[in-house]
Amino acid sequence: MEVSTEVGIMAGAGAQRRTATQGPEGPAKVTITEIAREAGVSVPTVSRVVNGRSDVSPATRARVEDLLHRHGYQRRPGAPGDRAALLDLVFNDLDSPWAVEIIRGVEEVAHEAGVGTVVSAIHDRAGAARQWMTNLRARASDGVILVTSVLEPGLHEELRRLGVPLVVIDPAGSPATEAPTVGATNWAGGMAATEHLLALGHRRIGFIAGPPRLLCSRARLDGYRAALDVAGVPVEDVLIVPGDFYHESGFTGCGRLLDLAAPPTAVFASSDQMALGAIEALRRRGLRVPEDMSVVGFDDLPEVRWSAPPLTTIRQPLSEMGKLGARTVLDLARSVEPASPRVELATELVVRASTAAPRGA
Amino acid sequence: MEVSTEVGIMAGAGAQRRTATQGPEGPAKVTITEIAREAGVSVPTVSRVVNGRSDVSPATRARVEDLLHRHGYQRRPGAPGDRAALLDLVFNDLDSPWAVEIIRGVEEVAHEAGVGTVVSAIHDRAGAARQWMTNLRARASDGVILVTSVLEPGLHEELRRLGVPLVVIDPAGSPATEAPTVGATNWAGGMAATEHLLALGHRRIGFIAGPPRLLCSRARLDGYRAALDVAGVPVEDVLIVPGDFYHESGFTGCGRLLDLAAPPTAVFASSDQMALGAIEALRRRGLRVPEDMSVVGFDDLPEVRWSAPPLTTIRQPLSEMGKLGARTVLDLARSVEPASPRVELATELVVRASTAAPRGA
Repeated sequence: MEVSTEVGIMAGAGAQRRTATQGPEGPAKVTITEIAREAGVSVPTVSRVVNGRSDVSPATRARVEDLLHRHGYQRRPGAPGDRAALLDLVFNDLDSPWAVEIIRGVEEVAHEAGVGTVVSAIHDRAGAARQWMTNLRARASDGVILVTSVLEPGLHEELRRLGVPLVVIDPAGSPATEAPTVGATNWAGGMAATEHLLALGHRRIGFIAGPPRLLCSRARLDGYRAALDVAGVPVEDVLIVPGDFYHESGFTGCGRLLDLAAPPTAVFASSDQMALGAIEALRRRGLRVPEDMSVVGFDDLPEVRWSAPPLTTIRQPLSEMGKLGARTVLDLARSVEPASPRVELATELVVRASTAAPRGA
Repeated sequence: MEVSTEVGIMAGAGAQRRTATQGPEGPAKVTITEIAREAGVSVPTVSRVVNGRSDVSPATRARVEDLLHRHGYQRRPGAPGDRAALLDLVFNDLDSPWAVEIIRGVEEVAHEAGVGTVVSAIHDRAGAARQWMTNLRARASDGVILVTSVLEPGLHEELRRLGVPLVVIDPAGSPATEAPTVGATNWAGGMAATEHLLALGHRRIGFIAGPPRLLCSRARLDGYRAALDVAGVPVEDVLIVPGDFYHESGFTGCGRLLDLAAPPTAVFASSDQMALGAIEALRRRGLRVPEDMSVVGFDDLPEVRWSAPPLTTIRQPLSEMGKLGARTVLDLARSVEPASPRVELATELVVRASTAAPRGA
């Protein structure tokens, strides 16, 4: 009895999918009885916490998990085929073709490792995030990949207590945890897009920004500024308009640029969706791309090869970011530390048909 | 000992995530000992099969599962919060914005029910499908939603033996099983798109087809033919060109139509991606949409509101199809039979800017 209980602790929150017939797989660092004594609760209560059951009060759960954590509780994946591994891939919203690129990369690596990819959307709502955490406990997920999403600090702390490894893809802000991150070189991409337009002869280049709370938005804008600076072209604040990465804001942002007394000759929309919105704004005014205005996007979503005209853009290696995120979280689940906790994969300029020299150049 | 073993059988393949401390939740119809005797194997072997372990020979597993099935083995979801429910959502490929719409609908319903959505791609490869089935067993998924994908009959049989409920969204061909299906009214949609062009005054209407092996492709083509027939316009085989639903085939298909001695004045591309490819083919030849040629798509992917010009298309309720698929499979997991085993959700014509009367009409 004591032995199987100890195995339960060692195997961690992922263990309830194991069968009782499996033997111990290593020495336990602490017995459930000791944890129960220290926490001042019964042995079955500790067992319920270990097994992710919901019938434990939050305060008791927190106390027991904290003790498990402090006593060096380690999640120990079993031998291949021995158990059902899962990883959780969490988006704010599943409302962009962007998401499917990340899912594709994560799924490919996870599938090969025999790991299931559980996809969730938490919609920036605390309630949905809390529900997700409850579900995560119950399914005893072996790792979490957060995409952009910011969790409230309490949930980060809960993941830490549970010992569930976490990786953040395309981190939204200053990381709230020590979790490894996988991003793209947004600053260099912003610079490359702007340099491309400068090389074509453009001097008045509009910029449609992303949400300022996202680090990637800031980095793209800073890259734009840096390229202009290096070229000795003054940065004009009037040429920088706000956006939120979605189509509509590209449409209205481009409209604002066109309404300026001296409109730009080129627009760098810092997401592909905004670039498509900008092209539509130009079309509605009877302006042609690239003859009347050049447009550059950012992302290289699969469909922009087929926009009219095909879009010049900065490629973000989204599926590769998903793959690396999955590899990193699976490594962490096996207690392998990543070589570098902050990785940025290279972005790349892809020149198609939406950019040309300005009129009269 | 006997009691907890019987609970294992009653709770089914989903039970290994339960803890041993849970009590029985109903009378067992058969004991593991009886199954073992009848199968001519040991009790622990039956236990391994029930618990989804991989260390059982395929033949033995099949024999035991067949007995469990014949003895009325029933998957019994526990009380809410009691266990970690999962459903598997399986695509052939995660390479289309189409996929994320389905995922969004499934995830929304599953998330609310506290169920995790495991997303997989099997790439039309038997090896990947087999690997997926192994993973499915190990994670003891509570239901499966197949999107379009055709599984080999052996895997269908295996799902049936495991007692895992199955729903097919957008069935590819004649269903290989009795599984409920959720589709869209493809035939009516094909007819509506064609009627729209006829009403604008078009008489020569090109059609870019989808893969002939998919039922939805055939239904759209038949709808096109039916609308022409009803209008008394002869169906010309030369105006029907092959495609595969992807952009490139719309590009080349439209090129073929333009190369005809008497090209059409409108093109009905039976997927949005093909419609975008067709628009690009027209743009490359200096032809304007809709002035020189009308284009209608099929799907209403979010981004076609922002194509240049915004696309007239047939809306498939993809996320609603995902929602209904999820509700159906969750019902089946609770032994609730669906009201109708074959549901087609309505498609709808969405008129935007890519269609107009033919020149000189």
